[in-house]
Amino acid sequence: MTDALDTIAQLYINDGLTDEQIEQQIAVYQPLSEDIRELILLAIQTKADGPAVAEARRHLAAAREILERDRETGPYGTRFNDSGRFRNWGNAAMGLRNPLAALHHIEEGPDGVRADFELNAAYEGPAGHTHGGVSALILDQILGDAVRSAGYPGMTGTLTVRYRRRIPLGPLRAEAKLDRVEGRKAFAVGHIADSDGICVEAEGIFIAPKWMIEQRDSFDERPRPQ
Amino acid sequence: MTDALDTIAQLYINDGLTDEQIEQQIAVYQPLSEDIRELILLAIQTKADGPAVAEARRHLAAAREILERDRETGPYGTRFNDSGRFRNWGNAAMGLRNPLAALHHIEEGPDGVRADFELNAAYEGPAGHTHGGVSALILDQILGDAVRSAGYPGMTGTLTVRYRRRIPLGPLRAEAKLDRVEGRKAFAVGHIADSDGICVEAEGIFIAPKWMIEQRDSFDERPRPQ
Repeated sequence: MTDALDTIAQLYINDGLTDEQIEQQIAVYQPLSEDIRELILLAIQTKADGPAVAEARRHLAAAREILERDRETGPYGTRFNDSGRFRNWGNAAMGLRNPLAALHHIEEGPDGVRADFELNAAYEGPAGHTHGGVSALILDQILGDAVRSAGYPGMTGTLTVRYRRRIPLGPLRAEAKLDRVEGRKAFAVGHIADSDGICVEAEGIFIAPKWMIEQRDSFDERPRPQ
Repeated sequence: MTDALDTIAQLYINDGLTDEQIEQQIAVYQPLSEDIRELILLAIQTKADGPAVAEARRHLAAAREILERDRETGPYGTRFNDSGRFRNWGNAAMGLRNPLAALHHIEEGPDGVRADFELNAAYEGPAGHTHGGVSALILDQILGDAVRSAGYPGMTGTLTVRYRRRIPLGPLRAEAKLDRVEGRKAFAVGHIADSDGICVEAEGIFIAPKWMIEQRDSFDERPRPQ
Protein backbone atom coordinates (compact mmCIF):
# COMPACT_ATOMS: atom_id res chain seq x y z
CA MET A 1 0.00 0.00 0.00
CA THR A 2 2.64 2.51 1.04
CA ASP A 3 4.88 1.55 -1.88
CA ALA A 4 2.03 1.99 -4.31
CA LEU A 5 1.20 5.43 -2.96
CA ASP A 6 4.88 6.42 -3.03
CA THR A 7 4.93 5.47 -6.69
CA ILE A 8 1.90 7.62 -7.35
CA ALA A 9 3.47 10.57 -5.54
CA GLN A 10 6.62 10.15 -7.69
CA LEU A 11 4.54 10.36 -10.85
CA TYR A 12 2.65 13.39 -9.62
CA ILE A 13 5.17 15.97 -10.71
CA ASN A 14 5.71 19.57 -11.66
CA ASP A 15 7.43 19.40 -15.05
CA GLY A 16 7.88 23.14 -15.31
CA LEU A 17 6.19 23.63 -18.69
CA THR A 18 4.85 27.09 -19.50
CA ASP A 19 1.18 27.44 -20.39
CA GLU A 20 2.28 28.24 -23.94
CA GLN A 21 4.27 25.00 -24.17
CA ILE A 22 1.25 23.08 -22.96
CA GLU A 23 -0.88 24.67 -25.68
CA GLN A 24 1.74 23.75 -28.26
CA GLN A 25 1.70 20.14 -27.09
CA ILE A 26 -2.08 20.04 -27.29
CA ALA A 27 -1.92 21.35 -30.87
CA VAL A 28 0.55 18.61 -31.86
CA TYR A 29 -0.67 15.58 -29.94
CA GLN A 30 -4.46 15.92 -29.76
CA PRO A 31 -4.93 15.52 -33.56
CA LEU A 32 -2.60 12.50 -33.47
CA SER A 33 -4.80 10.85 -30.86
CA GLU A 34 -7.89 11.63 -32.93
CA ASP A 35 -6.31 9.95 -35.95
CA ILE A 36 -5.59 6.84 -33.91
CA ARG A 37 -9.10 6.88 -32.49
CA GLU A 38 -10.42 6.64 -36.03
CA LEU A 39 -8.02 3.77 -36.75
CA ILE A 40 -9.36 1.89 -33.70
CA LEU A 41 -12.80 2.03 -35.27
CA LEU A 42 -11.44 0.93 -38.65
CA ALA A 43 -9.68 -2.04 -37.03
CA ILE A 44 -13.18 -3.28 -36.17
CA GLN A 45 -15.08 -2.08 -39.23
CA THR A 46 -12.81 -2.42 -42.23
CA LYS A 47 -13.63 -5.05 -44.83
CA ALA A 48 -10.34 -4.50 -46.67
CA ASP A 49 -8.86 -7.74 -47.99
CA GLY A 50 -5.47 -9.23 -47.08
CA PRO A 51 -3.32 -7.31 -49.63
CA ALA A 52 -5.03 -3.99 -48.79
CA VAL A 53 -4.57 -4.53 -45.06
CA ALA A 54 -0.89 -5.39 -45.69
CA GLU A 55 -0.52 -2.11 -47.57
CA ALA A 56 -2.21 -0.19 -44.76
CA ARG A 57 0.04 -1.90 -42.21
CA ARG A 58 3.14 -0.68 -44.09
CA HIS A 59 1.92 2.89 -43.59
CA LEU A 60 1.22 2.19 -39.93
CA ALA A 61 4.74 0.79 -39.52
CA ALA A 62 6.16 3.95 -41.11
CA ALA A 63 4.17 6.13 -38.71
CA ARG A 64 5.26 4.00 -35.79
CA GLU A 65 8.93 4.25 -36.78
CA ILE A 66 8.69 8.06 -36.76
CA LEU A 67 6.84 8.26 -33.44
CA GLU A 68 9.22 5.79 -31.79
CA ARG A 69 12.38 7.76 -32.55
CA ASP A 70 11.90 9.86 -29.44
CA ARG A 71 9.53 8.38 -26.90
CA GLU A 72 8.92 7.78 -23.25
CA THR A 73 8.42 4.22 -22.09
CA GLY A 74 6.46 4.52 -18.84
CA PRO A 75 3.04 5.80 -17.84
CA TYR A 76 2.26 9.48 -18.30
CA GLY A 77 1.46 10.11 -14.64
CA THR A 78 -0.06 13.35 -13.46
CA ARG A 79 1.92 16.42 -14.47
CA PHE A 80 1.37 20.01 -13.50
CA ASN A 81 3.07 23.36 -13.83
CA ASP A 82 3.58 26.48 -11.76
CA SER A 83 0.31 28.02 -12.88
CA GLY A 84 -1.56 24.99 -11.50
CA ARG A 85 -2.53 23.32 -14.77
CA PHE A 86 -2.86 19.59 -14.23
CA ARG A 87 -2.45 17.06 -17.01
CA ASN A 88 -3.58 13.43 -16.76
CA TRP A 89 -3.07 13.05 -20.47
CA GLY A 90 -2.63 9.29 -20.31
CA ASN A 91 -5.83 8.68 -18.35
CA ALA A 92 -7.85 5.81 -19.83
CA ALA A 93 -11.20 7.57 -19.36
CA MET A 94 -10.40 11.20 -20.19
CA GLY A 95 -6.72 11.63 -21.08
CA LEU A 96 -6.22 14.19 -23.85
CA ARG A 97 -3.49 12.09 -25.48
CA ASN A 98 -5.17 8.70 -24.90
CA PRO A 99 -7.11 7.37 -27.92
CA LEU A 100 -8.99 5.00 -25.60
CA ALA A 101 -10.54 7.87 -23.64
CA ALA A 102 -14.29 8.29 -24.15
CA LEU A 103 -14.57 11.60 -22.30
CA HIS A 104 -13.20 14.77 -23.85
CA HIS A 105 -14.66 17.50 -21.70
CA ILE A 106 -15.95 17.31 -18.15
CA GLU A 107 -17.89 20.38 -17.07
CA GLU A 108 -17.67 21.35 -13.42
CA GLY A 109 -20.51 23.32 -11.83
CA PRO A 110 -21.71 24.19 -8.36
CA ASP A 111 -24.03 21.16 -8.31
CA GLY A 112 -21.57 18.58 -9.61
CA VAL A 113 -19.96 17.57 -12.87
CA ARG A 114 -21.26 16.42 -16.21
CA ALA A 115 -19.94 15.24 -19.52
CA ASP A 116 -21.59 14.88 -22.90
CA PHE A 117 -19.89 12.23 -24.98
CA GLU A 118 -20.50 9.83 -27.82
CA LEU A 119 -19.60 6.16 -27.84
CA ASN A 120 -18.83 4.48 -31.15
CA ALA A 121 -18.63 0.79 -32.03
CA ALA A 122 -15.30 0.42 -30.20
CA TYR A 123 -17.17 0.59 -26.89
CA GLU A 124 -19.50 -2.29 -27.64
CA GLY A 125 -20.45 -5.06 -25.20
CA PRO A 126 -23.85 -6.71 -25.77
CA ALA A 127 -24.49 -6.64 -29.52
CA GLY A 128 -25.08 -3.06 -30.64
CA HIS A 129 -24.88 -1.62 -27.13
CA THR A 130 -22.39 -0.03 -24.79
CA HIS A 131 -20.29 -2.48 -22.77
CA GLY A 132 -21.48 -2.45 -19.15
CA GLY A 133 -17.85 -2.22 -18.08
CA VAL A 134 -17.26 0.84 -20.26
CA SER A 135 -20.09 2.61 -18.47
CA ALA A 136 -18.49 1.54 -15.16
CA LEU A 137 -15.19 3.05 -16.33
CA ILE A 138 -16.89 6.33 -17.23
CA LEU A 139 -18.83 6.40 -13.96
CA ASP A 140 -15.69 5.70 -11.91
CA GLN A 141 -14.02 8.66 -13.61
CA ILE A 142 -16.88 11.12 -13.31
CA LEU A 143 -17.79 10.24 -9.73
CA GLY A 144 -14.12 10.72 -8.83
CA ASP A 145 -14.17 14.07 -10.62
CA ALA A 146 -17.28 15.07 -8.69
CA VAL A 147 -15.63 14.54 -5.29
CA ARG A 148 -12.41 16.23 -6.45
CA SER A 149 -14.35 19.16 -7.87
CA ALA A 150 -16.16 19.53 -4.54
CA GLY A 151 -12.80 19.68 -2.76
CA TYR A 152 -12.46 16.07 -1.63
CA PRO A 153 -10.15 14.28 -4.07
CA GLY A 154 -9.67 10.59 -3.44
CA MET A 155 -9.17 7.19 -4.97
CA THR A 156 -11.99 4.74 -5.51
CA GLY A 157 -12.70 2.54 -2.50
CA THR A 158 -15.98 0.99 -3.64
CA LEU A 159 -17.96 1.45 -6.83
CA THR A 160 -21.47 0.05 -7.23
CA VAL A 161 -23.08 0.20 -10.66
CA ARG A 162 -26.76 -0.58 -11.25
CA TYR A 163 -27.97 -1.18 -14.79
CA ARG A 164 -31.57 -0.09 -15.26
CA ARG A 165 -31.61 -0.96 -18.93
CA ARG A 166 -29.23 -1.54 -21.82
CA ILE A 167 -27.09 1.46 -22.69
CA PRO A 168 -27.13 2.36 -26.37
CA LEU A 169 -24.07 3.43 -28.33
CA GLY A 170 -24.20 7.02 -29.58
CA PRO A 171 -24.68 10.30 -27.70
CA LEU A 172 -24.85 10.01 -23.91
CA ARG A 173 -24.53 12.23 -20.86
CA ALA A 174 -22.84 11.37 -17.56
CA GLU A 175 -23.58 13.36 -14.41
CA ALA A 176 -22.24 13.02 -10.86
CA LYS A 177 -22.16 14.91 -7.59
CA LEU A 178 -20.79 14.70 -4.08
CA ASP A 179 -23.37 13.13 -1.79
CA ARG A 180 -21.67 13.40 1.61
CA VAL A 181 -18.31 13.26 3.41
CA GLU A 182 -17.36 11.09 6.39
CA GLY A 183 -13.79 11.66 7.56
CA ARG A 184 -11.44 10.80 4.68
CA LYS A 185 -14.29 9.15 2.75
CA ALA A 186 -16.26 11.10 0.15
CA PHE A 187 -19.48 9.55 -1.21
CA ALA A 188 -20.61 10.34 -4.73
CA VAL A 189 -23.63 9.44 -6.85
CA GLY A 190 -24.09 9.68 -10.59
CA HIS A 191 -25.55 8.18 -13.72
CA ILE A 192 -25.36 7.86 -17.49
CA ALA A 193 -28.43 8.83 -19.50
CA ASP A 194 -29.50 8.75 -23.12
CA SER A 195 -32.27 10.90 -24.62
CA ASP A 196 -34.88 8.64 -22.95
CA GLY A 197 -33.44 9.03 -19.44
CA ILE A 198 -31.16 7.19 -17.05
CA CYS A 199 -29.69 3.87 -18.24
CA VAL A 200 -27.24 3.14 -15.44
CA GLU A 201 -26.56 4.65 -12.05
CA ALA A 202 -23.66 4.40 -9.63
CA GLU A 203 -22.49 5.27 -6.17
CA GLY A 204 -18.86 5.46 -5.17
CA ILE A 205 -16.79 5.86 -2.05
CA PHE A 206 -13.55 7.75 -2.59
CA ILE A 207 -10.76 7.76 -0.03
CA ALA A 208 -8.09 10.46 0.15
CA PRO A 209 -4.53 9.26 0.82
CA LYS A 210 -2.54 11.64 3.01
CA TRP A 211 -0.07 12.65 0.31
CA MET A 212 -2.95 13.76 -1.87
CA ILE A 213 -4.36 15.97 0.87
CA GLU A 214 -0.90 17.49 1.42
CA GLN A 215 -0.39 17.99 -2.31
CA ARG A 216 -3.79 19.63 -2.60
CA ASP A 217 -3.12 22.01 0.27
CA SER A 218 0.13 23.20 -1.32
CA PHE A 219 -1.76 24.97 -4.13
CA ASP A 220 -4.01 27.97 -4.16
CA GLU A 221 -6.15 26.27 -6.74
CA ARG A 222 -7.49 22.76 -6.33
CA PRO A 223 -5.92 20.22 -8.64
CA ARG A 224 -7.94 19.96 -11.79
CA PRO A 225 -7.12 17.96 -14.86
CA GLN A 226 -5.73 19.70 -17.96
CA MET B 1 -36.31 -2.15 -22.84
CA THR B 2 -37.99 -4.33 -25.43
CA ASP B 3 -36.64 -2.18 -28.25
CA ALA B 4 -33.12 -2.44 -26.88
CA LEU B 5 -33.33 -6.21 -26.61
CA ASP B 6 -34.78 -6.46 -30.11
CA THR B 7 -31.78 -4.54 -31.36
CA ILE B 8 -29.43 -6.93 -29.60
CA ALA B 9 -31.22 -9.92 -31.08
CA GLN B 10 -30.92 -8.34 -34.55
CA LEU B 11 -27.17 -8.03 -34.11
CA TYR B 12 -26.84 -11.58 -32.84
CA ILE B 13 -26.59 -13.25 -36.21
CA ASN B 14 -25.38 -16.29 -38.10
CA ASP B 15 -23.27 -14.84 -40.91
CA GLY B 16 -22.59 -18.21 -42.49
CA LEU B 17 -18.78 -18.02 -42.55
CA THR B 18 -16.87 -21.27 -42.68
CA ASP B 19 -14.32 -21.99 -39.96
CA GLU B 20 -11.61 -21.53 -42.59
CA GLN B 21 -12.92 -18.07 -43.50
CA ILE B 22 -12.90 -17.16 -39.82
CA GLU B 23 -9.26 -18.27 -39.54
CA GLN B 24 -8.40 -16.19 -42.62
CA GLN B 25 -10.04 -13.13 -41.05
CA ILE B 26 -8.11 -13.66 -37.84
CA ALA B 27 -4.84 -13.84 -39.80
CA VAL B 28 -5.61 -10.54 -41.57
CA TYR B 29 -7.24 -8.46 -38.85
CA GLN B 30 -5.57 -9.49 -35.60
CA PRO B 31 -2.13 -8.11 -36.61
CA LEU B 32 -3.83 -4.89 -37.74
CA SER B 33 -5.35 -4.46 -34.30
CA GLU B 34 -1.98 -5.15 -32.69
CA ASP B 35 -0.39 -2.42 -34.81
CA ILE B 36 -3.03 0.05 -33.70
CA ARG B 37 -2.64 -1.02 -30.09
CA GLU B 38 1.02 -0.02 -30.33
CA LEU B 39 0.02 3.32 -31.88
CA ILE B 40 -2.32 3.99 -28.95
CA LEU B 41 0.66 3.69 -26.64
CA LEU B 42 2.75 5.94 -28.89
CA ALA B 43 0.01 8.58 -28.91
CA ILE B 44 0.67 8.89 -25.17
CA GLN B 45 4.42 8.31 -25.11
CA THR B 46 5.90 9.89 -28.20
CA LYS B 47 8.08 12.96 -27.81
CA ALA B 48 8.23 13.55 -31.56
CA ASP B 49 8.11 17.24 -32.47
CA GLY B 50 5.50 18.99 -34.60
CA PRO B 51 7.04 18.29 -38.06
CA ALA B 52 7.70 14.62 -37.20
CA VAL B 53 4.15 14.14 -35.91
CA ALA B 54 2.83 15.77 -39.09
CA GLU B 55 4.86 13.29 -41.15
CA ALA B 56 3.55 10.36 -39.08
CA ARG B 57 0.00 11.63 -39.51
CA ARG B 58 0.39 11.57 -43.29
CA HIS B 59 1.15 7.86 -43.05
CA LEU B 60 -1.82 7.34 -40.74
CA ALA B 61 -4.06 9.16 -43.22
CA ALA B 62 -2.79 6.89 -46.02
CA ALA B 63 -3.56 3.79 -43.94
CA ARG B 64 -6.97 5.17 -43.09
CA GLU B 65 -7.77 5.86 -46.74
CA ILE B 66 -7.01 2.22 -47.61
CA LEU B 67 -9.00 0.76 -44.72
CA GLU B 68 -11.97 3.04 -45.38
CA ARG B 69 -12.44 1.97 -49.00
CA ASP B 70 -14.52 -1.00 -47.92
CA ARG B 71 -15.89 -0.73 -44.42
CA GLU B 72 -18.88 -1.33 -42.21
CA THR B 73 -20.28 1.61 -40.29
CA GLY B 74 -22.11 0.08 -37.36
CA PRO B 75 -21.20 -2.02 -34.35
CA TYR B 76 -19.77 -5.51 -34.90
CA GLY B 77 -22.47 -7.26 -32.90
CA THR B 78 -22.24 -10.94 -32.04
CA ARG B 79 -21.75 -13.18 -35.05
CA PHE B 80 -21.69 -16.93 -35.21
CA ASN B 81 -21.59 -19.69 -37.77
CA ASP B 82 -23.08 -23.12 -38.27
CA SER B 83 -20.33 -24.85 -36.33
CA GLY B 84 -21.18 -22.72 -33.27
CA ARG B 85 -18.18 -20.39 -33.28
CA PHE B 86 -19.16 -17.08 -31.72
CA ARG B 87 -17.37 -13.85 -32.46
CA ASN B 88 -17.70 -10.70 -30.35
CA TRP B 89 -14.78 -9.21 -32.19
CA GLY B 90 -15.79 -5.61 -31.43
CA ASN B 91 -16.11 -6.18 -27.68
CA ALA B 92 -14.39 -3.39 -25.72
CA ALA B 93 -12.92 -5.78 -23.13
CA MET B 94 -11.94 -8.83 -25.20
CA GLY B 95 -12.81 -8.33 -28.87
CA LEU B 96 -10.18 -9.86 -31.17
CA ARG B 97 -10.42 -6.93 -33.58
CA ASN B 98 -10.74 -4.21 -30.94
CA PRO B 99 -7.44 -2.45 -30.11
CA LEU B 100 -8.99 -1.21 -26.84
CA ALA B 101 -9.47 -4.73 -25.53
CA ALA B 102 -7.20 -5.64 -22.61
CA LEU B 103 -8.10 -9.34 -22.54
CA HIS B 104 -6.84 -11.66 -25.27
CA HIS B 105 -7.55 -15.09 -23.90
CA ILE B 106 -10.07 -16.15 -21.29
CA GLU B 107 -9.58 -19.70 -20.03
CA GLU B 108 -12.68 -21.61 -19.02
CA GLY B 109 -12.39 -24.40 -16.47
CA PRO B 110 -14.69 -26.42 -14.24
CA ASP B 111 -14.16 -23.98 -11.35
CA GLY B 112 -14.63 -20.76 -13.28
CA VAL B 113 -12.74 -18.59 -15.73
CA ARG B 114 -9.44 -16.80 -15.63
CA ALA B 115 -7.37 -14.49 -17.79
CA ASP B 116 -3.74 -13.49 -17.64
CA PHE B 117 -3.19 -10.12 -19.21
CA GLU B 118 -0.87 -7.15 -19.15
CA LEU B 119 -1.90 -3.52 -18.90
CA ASN B 120 0.32 -0.86 -20.43
CA ALA B 121 0.34 2.91 -19.91
CA ALA B 122 -2.87 3.33 -21.94
CA TYR B 123 -4.85 1.90 -19.03
CA GLU B 124 -3.62 4.43 -16.48
CA GLY B 125 -5.76 6.16 -13.88
CA PRO B 126 -3.98 7.27 -10.70
CA ALA B 127 -0.42 8.17 -11.68
CA GLY B 128 1.46 5.01 -12.65
CA HIS B 129 -1.43 2.69 -11.79
CA THR B 130 -4.34 0.97 -13.46
CA HIS B 131 -7.50 3.06 -13.77
CA GLY B 132 -10.07 1.80 -11.27
CA GLY B 133 -12.64 1.91 -14.05
CA VAL B 134 -10.51 -0.26 -16.33
CA SER B 135 -10.43 -2.93 -13.63
CA ALA B 136 -14.23 -2.58 -13.37
CA LEU B 137 -14.48 -3.10 -17.15
CA ILE B 138 -12.34 -6.24 -16.98
CA LEU B 139 -14.27 -7.57 -13.97
CA ASP B 140 -17.62 -6.94 -15.66
CA GLN B 141 -16.43 -8.95 -18.65
CA ILE B 142 -14.91 -11.85 -16.75
CA LEU B 143 -17.76 -12.19 -14.25
CA GLY B 144 -20.16 -12.27 -17.18
CA ASP B 145 -18.00 -14.91 -18.84
CA ALA B 146 -18.05 -16.96 -15.63
CA VAL B 147 -21.84 -17.13 -15.53
CA ARG B 148 -22.05 -17.81 -19.28
CA SER B 149 -19.40 -20.52 -19.02
CA ALA B 150 -21.38 -22.12 -16.19
CA GLY B 151 -24.48 -22.20 -18.42
CA TYR B 152 -26.25 -19.05 -17.21
CA PRO B 153 -25.52 -16.27 -19.69
CA GLY B 154 -26.92 -12.88 -18.82
CA MET B 155 -26.43 -9.16 -18.90
CA THR B 156 -25.08 -7.19 -16.00
CA GLY B 157 -27.75 -6.08 -13.51
CA THR B 158 -25.50 -4.88 -10.69
CA LEU B 159 -21.72 -4.76 -10.41
CA THR B 160 -19.99 -3.95 -7.12
CA VAL B 161 -16.24 -3.40 -7.16
CA ARG B 162 -14.14 -3.13 -3.99
CA TYR B 163 -10.63 -1.79 -4.22
CA ARG B 164 -8.35 -3.32 -1.58
CA ARG B 165 -5.30 -1.46 -2.81
CA ARG B 166 -4.00 0.31 -5.89
CA ILE B 167 -3.71 -1.88 -8.96
CA PRO B 168 -0.34 -1.69 -10.69
CA LEU B 169 0.13 -1.59 -14.44
CA GLY B 170 1.90 -4.66 -15.87
CA PRO B 171 1.06 -8.36 -15.60
CA LEU B 172 -2.21 -9.18 -13.84
CA ARG B 173 -4.62 -12.08 -13.50
CA ALA B 174 -8.42 -11.92 -13.36
CA GLU B 175 -10.46 -14.83 -12.02
CA ALA B 176 -14.22 -15.28 -11.62
CA LYS B 177 -16.76 -17.98 -10.91
CA LEU B 178 -20.47 -18.53 -10.61
CA ASP B 179 -21.53 -18.14 -6.98
CA ARG B 180 -25.22 -19.08 -7.13
CA VAL B 181 -28.37 -18.87 -9.27
CA GLU B 182 -31.78 -17.48 -8.25
CA GLY B 183 -34.35 -17.73 -11.04
CA ARG B 184 -33.11 -15.69 -14.01
CA LYS B 185 -30.40 -14.10 -11.86
CA ALA B 186 -26.88 -15.54 -11.77
CA PHE B 187 -24.48 -14.27 -9.09
CA ALA B 188 -20.76 -14.21 -9.78
CA VAL B 189 -17.68 -13.29 -7.76
CA GLY B 190 -14.17 -12.53 -8.96
CA HIS B 191 -11.03 -10.48 -8.53
CA ILE B 192 -7.91 -9.08 -10.16
CA ALA B 193 -4.56 -9.95 -8.58
CA ASP B 194 -0.93 -9.05 -9.12
CA SER B 195 2.02 -11.14 -7.92
CA ASP B 196 1.40 -9.93 -4.36
CA GLY B 197 -2.25 -11.05 -4.28
CA ILE B 198 -5.70 -9.58 -4.76
CA CYS B 199 -5.94 -5.87 -5.58
CA VAL B 200 -9.64 -5.54 -6.36
CA GLU B 201 -12.64 -7.82 -5.99
CA ALA B 202 -16.13 -7.75 -7.44
CA GLU B 203 -19.51 -9.34 -7.31
CA GLY B 204 -22.02 -9.16 -10.11
CA ILE B 205 -25.64 -10.06 -10.73
CA PHE B 206 -26.35 -11.14 -14.30
CA ILE B 207 -29.86 -11.37 -15.68
CA ALA B 208 -30.81 -13.49 -18.69
CA PRO B 209 -33.25 -11.90 -21.14
CA LYS B 210 -35.68 -14.37 -22.64
CA TRP B 211 -34.32 -14.13 -26.19
CA MET B 212 -30.89 -15.09 -24.90
CA ILE B 213 -32.24 -18.20 -23.21
CA GLU B 214 -34.08 -19.15 -26.40
CA GLN B 215 -30.99 -18.50 -28.52
CA ARG B 216 -28.88 -20.59 -26.15
CA ASP B 217 -31.29 -23.49 -26.26
CA SER B 218 -31.22 -23.53 -30.05
CA PHE B 219 -27.61 -24.75 -30.08
CA ASP B 220 -26.03 -27.99 -29.05
CA GLU B 221 -23.10 -26.07 -27.71
CA ARG B 222 -23.45 -23.12 -25.39
CA PRO B 223 -22.60 -19.79 -26.97
CA ARG B 224 -18.96 -19.01 -26.39
CA PRO B 225 -16.99 -16.10 -27.81
CA GLN B 226 -14.58 -16.63 -30.70
